[in-house]
Amino acid sequence: MKSSDRRNFLKNAIIGTVGLTATTSILAANESEIDFLSPKISINSLKNSNVILFQGDSITDAGRNREAKDPNIQNALGGGYAFLAAAELLNTFPTKNLKIFNKGISGNKVYQLSDRWQTDCLDLYPSVLSILIGVNDYWHKHNGNYDGTVEIYEKDLRALLKRTKDALPEVKLVICEPFAVLGCKAVDGTWFPEFDSYRASARKLSGEFDAIFIPYHDIFIKASKIAPPTYWTGDGVHPSVAGAKLMAEVWMKYVFGK
Amino acid sequence: MKSSDRRNFLKNAIIGTVGLTATTSILAANESEIDFLSPKISINSLKNSNVILFQGDSITDAGRNREAKDPNIQNALGGGYAFLAAAELLNTFPTKNLKIFNKGISGNKVYQLSDRWQTDCLDLYPSVLSILIGVNDYWHKHNGNYDGTVEIYEKDLRALLKRTKDALPEVKLVICEPFAVLGCKAVDGTWFPEFDSYRASARKLSGEFDAIFIPYHDIFIKASKIAPPTYWTGDGVHPSVAGAKLMAEVWMKYVFGK
Repeated sequence: MKSSDRRNFLKNAIIGTVGLTATTSILAANESEIDFLSPKISINSLKNSNVILFQGDSITDAGRNREAKDPNIQNALGGGYAFLAAAELLNTFPTKNLKIFNKGISGNKVYQLSDRWQTDCLDLYPSVLSILIGVNDYWHKHNGNYDGTVEIYEKDLRALLKRTKDALPEVKLVICEPFAVLGCKAVDGTWFPEFDSYRASARKLSGEFDAIFIPYHDIFIKASKIAPPTYWTGDGVHPSVAGAKLMAEVWMKYVFGK
Repeated sequence: MKSSDRRNFLKNAIIGTVGLTATTSILAANESEIDFLSPKISINSLKNSNVILFQGDSITDAGRNREAKDPNIQNALGGGYAFLAAAELLNTFPTKNLKIFNKGISGNKVYQLSDRWQTDCLDLYPSVLSILIGVNDYWHKHNGNYDGTVEIYEKDLRALLKRTKDALPEVKLVICEPFAVLGCKAVDGTWFPEFDSYRASARKLSGEFDAIFIPYHDIFIKASKIAPPTYWTGDGVHPSVAGAKLMAEVWMKYVFGK
């Protein structure tokens, strides 16, 4: 089999060719970026009972019960992309005995992650740490409730990532791009181009820390060409069920190539 | 391409061949039954805004907010297989504008579905109706809290299905096999073989009403050879996150061939 044939075969095997769906179109458009043939994390590199941690704000939180401490429990994982990705991971890798936590908290900005990082991240010893943070760092400034800037966002996030790597040198990092979708009730043209600078900082830091970067903003923009923006996110910031599933699916492709 | 090659190609494209996982093994073992090449429901047969309804007991309910009336909302869909299947459907078919409801209620037996069928099923005009009912019809008898028999279960479920078909002649039915997994705290050897007669009734009725039948009991037994039974269901009746995702994945394969 020629290399290009093999590539197509693998691509077809992974993303499916039967009844090509909008979702696979969205993913296919990002194929070169995803690099299906070289997922950044091989499931074989994970040991039995390794911890996967989702961190972030309300998008990650998604209504989780913060009193529920055990991993792999639905109400502890919430009802968003973290739960959907966890369900996929637990079903796809049943022999790995993964321990999956969601510690997102609604409203959080980077400095609030820092305040609770020892307990809600380092003490859990994650093998894979996925962070989605930034929309509030901009949004709360935009609505006059916070005086942080993109420079503070980037500086705080860099410090948080350095602290994480110092404490957990082996951790595999996933940085999720903050996103904001025009055409929904909370997001209008006044967000741009300033909001883009937060996206750019997240991307830059993923390079500095050798993290997998998931370009969620672009993904939502592409998805919004197939169904209206509000199909994927009611307010432009919080995903619908469809949007959360899209995020989880994309997360699996970018992180594990599945 | 020869027919057999095409079949293998499609199979590979659908179930994936890269890093063959336990899940795909479970599905592959059921391949002939699923009949990947002839899904019973073509997505093309669904019209814009068609309704998909999940009905059943606590396994379907999965902690949903019963005050939430809108379709496609996470807390209205709960945190189980119905939500996970809904998320998959909404993401996979974004142009169909599907309306997905979960009306499962914890503890329900068939006669309790009948009591609320007009409001919680017929008035919603489902195009696809998926029913998972039966474990309580047996369990509550087994623990002495109900005097129904398998004959009553079958008679009541037949009447419910006939009533449904009379009111909604075009509805596509999905009957999910009740399941109970040995080796978990609520299920022991005293359940069998009597519980199997409930499974057999559900299967028989699926034939009578030309319904898609999903053999969940067998699926859980097969899954339990890959990871312990309690990985998939804590008590043998209620699925874990992994078990709920397995159910949703299998549902998609059997119902839409996806």
